[in-house]
Amino acid sequence: MKSLYFTPGPSQLYFTAEEHIKTALKEQIPSISHRSATFQSIFQHAVENLRTLVNLPDNFHILFTASATEIWERLIQNCVDNSSLHLVNGAFSQRFYDMAKMLNINADEIRIDPGHCVTGDDIKVEGHHELIAFTHNETSTGVSQPLEDIYSVREKHPDALIAVDVVSSIPYVNLDFDKIDSAYFSVQKCFGLPAGLGVWFVNDRCLAKAEERLAKGQVIGSYHSLPSLVKQSKKNQTPETPNVLNIYLLRKVAEDMNTKGLDMIRRETEYKSAVLYNTLENHPDFDLFVKEQSWRSKTVIVAETNLTSQRVIENLQNKKLLVGSGYGNFKDQHIRIANFPTHSKEQVEMLADTLETLTD
Amino acid sequence: MKSLYFTPGPSQLYFTAEEHIKTALKEQIPSISHRSATFQSIFQHAVENLRTLVNLPDNFHILFTASATEIWERLIQNCVDNSSLHLVNGAFSQRFYDMAKMLNINADEIRIDPGHCVTGDDIKVEGHHELIAFTHNETSTGVSQPLEDIYSVREKHPDALIAVDVVSSIPYVNLDFDKIDSAYFSVQKCFGLPAGLGVWFVNDRCLAKAEERLAKGQVIGSYHSLPSLVKQSKKNQTPETPNVLNIYLLRKVAEDMNTKGLDMIRRETEYKSAVLYNTLENHPDFDLFVKEQSWRSKTVIVAETNLTSQRVIENLQNKKLLVGSGYGNFKDQHIRIANFPTHSKEQVEMLADTLETLTD
Repeated sequence: MKSLYFTPGPSQLYFTAEEHIKTALKEQIPSISHRSATFQSIFQHAVENLRTLVNLPDNFHILFTASATEIWERLIQNCVDNSSLHLVNGAFSQRFYDMAKMLNINADEIRIDPGHCVTGDDIKVEGHHELIAFTHNETSTGVSQPLEDIYSVREKHPDALIAVDVVSSIPYVNLDFDKIDSAYFSVQKCFGLPAGLGVWFVNDRCLAKAEERLAKGQVIGSYHSLPSLVKQSKKNQTPETPNVLNIYLLRKVAEDMNTKGLDMIRRETEYKSAVLYNTLENHPDFDLFVKEQSWRSKTVIVAETNLTSQRVIENLQNKKLLVGSGYGNFKDQHIRIANFPTHSKEQVEMLADTLETLTD
Repeated sequence: MKSLYFTPGPSQLYFTAEEHIKTALKEQIPSISHRSATFQSIFQHAVENLRTLVNLPDNFHILFTASATEIWERLIQNCVDNSSLHLVNGAFSQRFYDMAKMLNINADEIRIDPGHCVTGDDIKVEGHHELIAFTHNETSTGVSQPLEDIYSVREKHPDALIAVDVVSSIPYVNLDFDKIDSAYFSVQKCFGLPAGLGVWFVNDRCLAKAEERLAKGQVIGSYHSLPSLVKQSKKNQTPETPNVLNIYLLRKVAEDMNTKGLDMIRRETEYKSAVLYNTLENHPDFDLFVKEQSWRSKTVIVAETNLTSQRVIENLQNKKLLVGSGYGNFKDQHIRIANFPTHSKEQVEMLADTLETLTD
């Protein structure tokens, strides 16, 4: 019997993914040329379905990289001469900040403890930053930055480019793309695909910044610079031989999600998260890690436990239910549960029932 | 009925690959954590099987990137302060040279017409170059650089790092790793896997160079810098969530190749290339593009044709045999045929028989 992965990425495959992989093999998708009309059609439909799904405006490009981690590097390379600012409240926002420093730019941070958000007027943007980086959903702790804070920073600092990490919240998150400049994710989380593909939404302001840097003789990378990626994407192609199979699968799953309807996916996500939060809140051995209700992620549910998290995880594993351990320093104190579009209401209810009866 | 892909990459999947993909789905490999012991074991066995297959010495690391294109960028970033030298005789060696210039280093070239090699004392290395880049097998034209030339450059220039593109010749190519510093490839060619994974062999000299650059405060990238990749590889992990499925498949196919034996694969490759070259040489409408016999690739066979290459390709396609068109400017004048380990003697003989009877 197969296990059910509620781990926050890689996670359970989208429920149609396995069939799509088998169809891809029948159609010999892994053997086609990435310069062929067949590939161009796959690319085009992937982009169109994603654009429809998240209601992405025309001034945004959809680009493919190998991972969201790569997009961090490309954002700094392409969009920053001198300085970036990072709201850091967990391991992944921290990693982007660390990377900016590795790339020798002046990276500043606004730091707050894991499980918390800096919000409203507490977001003090001092000095000039060309890029301000938000993590909408910290996969490490299950804390979610209110979108209004992101939009209000952009309103106050219209010259800065606003990049939003939606790695573990898209397509649930309802972004107003008129109020940000870039968003990005990887497909092994909410899209339920094998890892190895990053998706980068980037608007013309970001592209103009990269072109400006290039014109000044600065290095903005090579094959995966924004001008290179955008140029190829206009031909429905990529600069290098990409992960063709994953682009095919992304097209199929985005199509499936459009067929189901994002409204339905969002309603189900909210229902399932309520079930999980209620169960954990009412359980004598669990506490929710994020105390402020409005900051609680709908897609990555994190609980502290006075049991040993490894024992909890093993108990669930014996019932073929896999949840994540805590991240980094929280490894032994937390469990993390993915609530992604592939996880059905019935599956989440089963997990909640199992959690309810759980003892050490 | 499925087609048989003799295109030079992406190409026909390795004959066991589809079964391995199905097993991976049964075992839920796409859902496992890249920090789990299961993944570490897959990584370790992939590396061990590759090391055995190509007889890679212990002073070489095996690292995973998204593509061979990425490795070009990482080689320059990590291993070059000032200058690289590129032997350019086709589209892919050209692209690496162009990329070095984009990365703002002093890139020099030794250029010769496509289909030719600069060999022996004609390889004039003037000035100081920290990296000298060879393309063992130009996938665009089917020309293969004699290994002795590569080794002799290293002997004469012991301070330079020697990087060898073996994208479309490994594992056939029998490299003496004591005489080079880096070699790299992507898995969609001779390993017959879906695209989306690059494999980088790199020795301690390259790593030391990257560490030296880092110590001087130079930017060597971030998550995919050599020190970062090597550090993670020692834990049988990668810095980012990698293409887990492809690393699993590479492990399986490298294992299959070891079981078959590389000697046998090499003998078959030579036999099959002789069949194809003979057929094309004796055909009134074809000429071999590479005139000098010792430069002819055993793995990518390229012929000029006085027919229209598109017609030839369509004629073969009607028989479910897919060969590649010419690359770039040669699109209409050449056909390119992959002779990879997955292509059986019987399949190549069938292609040769079909080519023999081909008229416009």
